[in-house]
Amino acid sequence: MTRSPLAPARFPDMPAIAGLSLGVASTGIKYKNRPDLLLMRLPEAATVAAVFTISDTAAAPVSWSRNVIKAGTASAILTNAGNANAFTGSRGEATVRHTADALAALTGTTANSILLASTGVIGEPLDAAALTKHFPALLADPEASWAQAAEAILTTDTFAKGALATCQIDTTPITICGIAKGSGMIAPNMATMLGYIATDAALPAPLLQACLTSATNDSFNAITVDSDTSTNDSVFLVATGAAGNAAVTRPDDPRLAAFRDALKAVMIDLATQIVRDGEGASKFITITVEGADTDSLARNIGLAIANSPLVKTAIAGEDANWGRIVMAIGKHGYGIDPQSIGIKIGGYPVAQNGMRVDDYDETPIAAHMKTASIDISVSVGSGSGTARVYSCDLTHGYISINADYRS
Amino acid sequence: MTRSPLAPARFPDMPAIAGLSLGVASTGIKYKNRPDLLLMRLPEAATVAAVFTISDTAAAPVSWSRNVIKAGTASAILTNAGNANAFTGSRGEATVRHTADALAALTGTTANSILLASTGVIGEPLDAAALTKHFPALLADPEASWAQAAEAILTTDTFAKGALATCQIDTTPITICGIAKGSGMIAPNMATMLGYIATDAALPAPLLQACLTSATNDSFNAITVDSDTSTNDSVFLVATGAAGNAAVTRPDDPRLAAFRDALKAVMIDLATQIVRDGEGASKFITITVEGADTDSLARNIGLAIANSPLVKTAIAGEDANWGRIVMAIGKHGYGIDPQSIGIKIGGYPVAQNGMRVDDYDETPIAAHMKTASIDISVSVGSGSGTARVYSCDLTHGYISINADYRS
Repeated sequence: MTRSPLAPARFPDMPAIAGLSLGVASTGIKYKNRPDLLLMRLPEAATVAAVFTISDTAAAPVSWSRNVIKAGTASAILTNAGNANAFTGSRGEATVRHTADALAALTGTTANSILLASTGVIGEPLDAAALTKHFPALLADPEASWAQAAEAILTTDTFAKGALATCQIDTTPITICGIAKGSGMIAPNMATMLGYIATDAALPAPLLQACLTSATNDSFNAITVDSDTSTNDSVFLVATGAAGNAAVTRPDDPRLAAFRDALKAVMIDLATQIVRDGEGASKFITITVEGADTDSLARNIGLAIANSPLVKTAIAGEDANWGRIVMAIGKHGYGIDPQSIGIKIGGYPVAQNGMRVDDYDETPIAAHMKTASIDISVSVGSGSGTARVYSCDLTHGYISINADYRS
Repeated sequence: MTRSPLAPARFPDMPAIAGLSLGVASTGIKYKNRPDLLLMRLPEAATVAAVFTISDTAAAPVSWSRNVIKAGTASAILTNAGNANAFTGSRGEATVRHTADALAALTGTTANSILLASTGVIGEPLDAAALTKHFPALLADPEASWAQAAEAILTTDTFAKGALATCQIDTTPITICGIAKGSGMIAPNMATMLGYIATDAALPAPLLQACLTSATNDSFNAITVDSDTSTNDSVFLVATGAAGNAAVTRPDDPRLAAFRDALKAVMIDLATQIVRDGEGASKFITITVEGADTDSLARNIGLAIANSPLVKTAIAGEDANWGRIVMAIGKHGYGIDPQSIGIKIGGYPVAQNGMRVDDYDETPIAAHMKTASIDISVSVGSGSGTARVYSCDLTHGYISINADYRS
């Protein structure tokens, strides 16, 4: 696959997180001659948090990890790419149990301390042995870099995704590193979003979970490529504690504000990289909504615009077809007063008070539509609810990737 | 535009409905050299019912007609194609008022007996004069055929859509005729769905409304091309009473069962013709869902499958990628038990009890995928809720129509 035209210039230089080790191996299950298995081992003091797909057809490793994460600690996160182990019934459940058992035996831990994630084909049986036989190789070399780890979790992404930030808790310097995979795919795969974020901060698990959940709403839950929700979406946040910062116990502790901002920045960076690697994407779209009654309504309106095939194709065609934005704002019948609607594209007013602005001039907007980053800003009332949502356009490339190639 | 490969062979032979007259004229507002204005005049005894878009950004004629329809009677329905008069604020409201006033003056009726509908570009001002100056021509020739009427309401549909059915109320023969326009479009138009159904039955307006609302759920509310809801969707049902059937007052009167079935058949026929004219459609998709707790949940699951870009592109690629159907069933988190899910494609079992069937053989399914009509049947539990949903695939043609052509 050609690297997305919206990709960052290069993978960032990311430091190791003290106490955390990364190992990769190649199973050959689907991909040949490339690592597709990632083991992230956590120090004993580490705390963990996670968020998972809302799908009713969540994969076997998601159900497994949902249970493990309750402890707030874990010894490892194992991820394989190429087979999602989703909709595999009791056989899939046996696979995750055997996989965790085998890894626990080799590492001297218990199976229920091992988090699992899979990405790839849905409905295809996955044998534990296809993974476990590579565990010795995986454990033999725990010195993989973040870049190697980010490569090992890819399916049909066109580039590896990494992000980092530093901040302070009180006066202690903290590092946050993250990797993710996204939504490049060819039949018969489907977009599965996986994210792994690690920090050397010392934070109790419930606090970590609160920080992760909150930041997810503004990052991974604020992106959409094609409105389809994966069976395997999972984001893990690990805190090793090696930084030795002062104890913080409440999410609203002011000493934690910088950490929360930095975490959100890393997650937004990763999330927008996923959008930049959306199938066939040629335009990166940022949609800002304000004036809604709640932040949640603002995000739903933003997602309605971001998911509209008519809006996405208009942007692909570099067409300032703002009537389609009006359509998308109204389509779900949320009870928005049309007279309150205002729209700007690229910062240029298009509509206000429920109709086109009097002196509408498409010239500067047409020029903005030709750029690679499209900004749409919408106001829908006088409430205090705001949201920012990220998406990409819908192009012939999306159809080619998802329809033209046969499984 | 090339006629859709999924189009019926020809427009049906449709009889006039006694008492109803049809007239067409050409305004030249957007389309040149073709009728784009339709006047349907109703006899005094006629009753009317209607359903409208749920959009918050509903067009000015929708707001107007929502008010008129309350009376249960009307003297006329006027429709123009090429300009939706949507998101046009107070100016758009003035246009509908002036339009109705002018028509009322020429026909000796009152403005608030005139139903209005528009379809076409959103956000573009529409002057009443652009319509009213053609009223004399429109009224001069009230002898248009259903085929001519169906042509006059099209925007970028590739074929005119008509359907009819006959039935009896008690022993009185009844005729039901309908026309509709759908979802062919080029930038900057958007899909607007309009439907007009007329019958010679004598039925009070509240009963007519009950019949229309119920049949809409199984027809126009059960189709999707691209999940985008128009600002102008409207369906009108007119009953002239000329058939002189016995009085029926309750929707559940057994004497009305045949009429309700026939009405639903006409509406499903029109609705599926709209899907067959979906932008770029190469496959007609029927999705049947059973076992849900309610019919409404069954329809939502069917629509989730029908609206999934991943399912639609897989079908375009003739790829039996049933994992994407699993994804779509689960994606909204309705609380479906994955162990209860079964899937058939073209009648062939693919999955049951939450996993792939043991003796899965893709050969007959791959052959079914090559046909023009794809049948997907899904069971999601042991409830009594069922639904049937109709859609089309997502192809390069959709992208070409909506992105490649500039406004």
